[in-house]
Amino acid sequence: LEEKKYIQLRELFIEAKAADLAELIEEVAEEHPNNTTIIFRLLPKDLAADVFSYLSPTQKRNIVDTLHENQLRNIVEELNFDDKIDFLEEMPANVVKRILKRVTDDERKLINQFLNYPEFSAGSLMTIEYVSLKKEMTVAEALQHIRMNGIDKETIYTCYVLNETRKLEGIISLRKLILADDHLKVAEIMDVDVISTTTLDDQEEVADLFKKYDLMSLPVVDREDRLVGIITIDDIVDVIEQENTEDFEKMAALLPSEEEYMNTGIFLLARRRIVWLLVLMISATFTENIIGRFEDVLSAVVILAAAIPMLMDTAGNAGNQTSTLIIRGIALGEIELDDYLKVLWKEFRISVLVGIMLASVNFVRMLLVSNASLAIAITVSLTLALTVIMAKLFGGMLPIIAKRMKLDPAIMAGPLITTIVDAMALVVYFNIAGMILGLY
Amino acid sequence: LEEKKYIQLRELFIEAKAADLAELIEEVAEEHPNNTTIIFRLLPKDLAADVFSYLSPTQKRNIVDTLHENQLRNIVEELNFDDKIDFLEEMPANVVKRILKRVTDDERKLINQFLNYPEFSAGSLMTIEYVSLKKEMTVAEALQHIRMNGIDKETIYTCYVLNETRKLEGIISLRKLILADDHLKVAEIMDVDVISTTTLDDQEEVADLFKKYDLMSLPVVDREDRLVGIITIDDIVDVIEQENTEDFEKMAALLPSEEEYMNTGIFLLARRRIVWLLVLMISATFTENIIGRFEDVLSAVVILAAAIPMLMDTAGNAGNQTSTLIIRGIALGEIELDDYLKVLWKEFRISVLVGIMLASVNFVRMLLVSNASLAIAITVSLTLALTVIMAKLFGGMLPIIAKRMKLDPAIMAGPLITTIVDAMALVVYFNIAGMILGLY
Repeated sequence: LEEKKYIQLRELFIEAKAADLAELIEEVAEEHPNNTTIIFRLLPKDLAADVFSYLSPTQKRNIVDTLHENQLRNIVEELNFDDKIDFLEEMPANVVKRILKRVTDDERKLINQFLNYPEFSAGSLMTIEYVSLKKEMTVAEALQHIRMNGIDKETIYTCYVLNETRKLEGIISLRKLILADDHLKVAEIMDVDVISTTTLDDQEEVADLFKKYDLMSLPVVDREDRLVGIITIDDIVDVIEQENTEDFEKMAALLPSEEEYMNTGIFLLARRRIVWLLVLMISATFTENIIGRFEDVLSAVVILAAAIPMLMDTAGNAGNQTSTLIIRGIALGEIELDDYLKVLWKEFRISVLVGIMLASVNFVRMLLVSNASLAIAITVSLTLALTVIMAKLFGGMLPIIAKRMKLDPAIMAGPLITTIVDAMALVVYFNIAGMILGLY
Repeated sequence: LEEKKYIQLRELFIEAKAADLAELIEEVAEEHPNNTTIIFRLLPKDLAADVFSYLSPTQKRNIVDTLHENQLRNIVEELNFDDKIDFLEEMPANVVKRILKRVTDDERKLINQFLNYPEFSAGSLMTIEYVSLKKEMTVAEALQHIRMNGIDKETIYTCYVLNETRKLEGIISLRKLILADDHLKVAEIMDVDVISTTTLDDQEEVADLFKKYDLMSLPVVDREDRLVGIITIDDIVDVIEQENTEDFEKMAALLPSEEEYMNTGIFLLARRRIVWLLVLMISATFTENIIGRFEDVLSAVVILAAAIPMLMDTAGNAGNQTSTLIIRGIALGEIELDDYLKVLWKEFRISVLVGIMLASVNFVRMLLVSNASLAIAITVSLTLALTVIMAKLFGGMLPIIAKRMKLDPAIMAGPLITTIVDAMALVVYFNIAGMILGLY
């Protein structure tokens, strides 16, 4: 197929979806890196720009390196404004310079302004390609205006009503315009109670607004309420996945990163892992001291050591279950900070139920299957029930405390709770053992 | 504010957003459950239906119980078709009967058909309120048709071109229609290469299509390619969060559930937790046997027990990091099943790096801070490095194996990997201890 039949290929490509072509290029890149540029050059320039915006940063860089100055400029011109900004952010400085040299002064100023919005802010998500209307327009005039100006806008389905100083006075959906009488004024039917955000708001808050109000797009305003850009839902879907990935990573004791796993080098991946592993390892040496302190108990009854892993694992799992539910509940807005007493009371009752069930099963198992002595079976089962209760209370409290301290609750997940709960489990275990086995 | 000033309140409400009113009702419900119905009755019926669709299932049930037959019917009539189906699915059977008694035969048939689509399928997400066009219409006729019929449609921004047998021939966006010349035929400008799904497809696959192609809506067709409904992006945002929650829960050894934490009883919550805790607890007794088998090693050098918790925690964390990255990579489509050798090789190199660093820090710490003997420090550090490597290889492999066996990779997360890795860590530990300390 790849054998010089360029014309047929080109025809095939023109009918394909940009997302599929991007996928094709990524796949071809793995085996025949040289062919990617050939494929890319076969595309007409609007489609090429569209495909380009779907490519991974690595692949974008590869293609930029092989394109001529003119071709590159054509692609960049065709990109949507927000894709253009994303692209410039991903490229090395020399490529950015090359591109900025070719644009008009006004555009360069605008691009620089956008490049300066902090990562993960509303400003970094927005585009300037929106339709603006005036409130004295009639519906017919507004529709005519959209027809004349809509072609290169990111969306025409929501239009923004601005006054002479670009202050946002209202929004109106294309749906409302289409269904309204031609002679009505925009001012009469526009929605004046506009939900908006500012350039420096965090993208997570922006995503929450979209979810809460089922929005398709959201205006971004400055401190004087002047419209500076809009954010559309397609970018928000990516933000939601990104925020979820960040939570998954934090909950697994990883430093978050935006790079894809397969495209990241091992040193970077190792660095994201070593920090928390070191912290947790050193915290875990605390347990070493506890066991050291109870060495006499342990040497009197060595077999006590046998149950330590099971006790620790179960306590860790129990705490992890609770903290995950609470972290997720906070992230989705289902659990409020004021609910902490309710959470504690709920977790206490659940943990008593769960703790007693686990302890009973374990007690029977130890007596019947492991032939343990009654005293040891009681010691282990009692410890199990108590540590499950403690683990669930900690698992319920720590994420809420973190949130109150303006930290991300996600760091209070499995790994940290396991370390804390393990130490407590050992203290409980040896104290109960000492009492029941009469070692003191 | 709640003191009989109903007229002023009503005016306030009419200007508010439905999502905010729903939030208000949920809050009022916590303190004055009786007031919720009063608020709700103050709303005009289209707003009431809108607010209603934002409420939690519990709150919907409460309000339904207090409404008169007629009021209930008014609300149900105003609901969007997909919200109506969701509502009926959430209500107890007697309410559903009450409602179905009042609708026409045709509608009841349709509702029953929709209620029969399996949960989490494309069919359960779709709505029938779309705009259909014919391909011989001109752009002007199509726009006129949209103006006449668009008012009660879920979206008018994508229209569906059907033939006489309701077969889907193409789609066309309102944007294209607005920007096109009036005299063009729909057939000339419609998009014939339509991405669609079928009623029984899983909602996760549907969400992936939306993400991949940046869709706003997606047609659902039957086996004969006839259009049966459409799915819109606002429902997909909820699906994405739901699928992520499910993964979080599975990864924390919880049985997934759709109910909100605060509204779920403790018995149900306990049941979701006990299953995996029991399975994992019983698997962990495997470690008991291992320690039992090495009891002579342990009683010779009791202090060996002191390092067990640290070794197990670190191995568990290391495995957890990797499995989380791989599970997430698979879920987002960044890691393919064919990549398993690359993943293994990558994880091997990373784990060697990370393992050596952790072991070195631990070695120095044990010698300098804990005053351990050289032999013990070597035993523990060597075990640490080896178990970190094993943990990361297992963490990388198990999710991919699960996916190949058509299981959800998310179950191969922290808890399960910790249990497996703990057992391995102990075997390695005692064997190394036996060799280095010359106990055999």
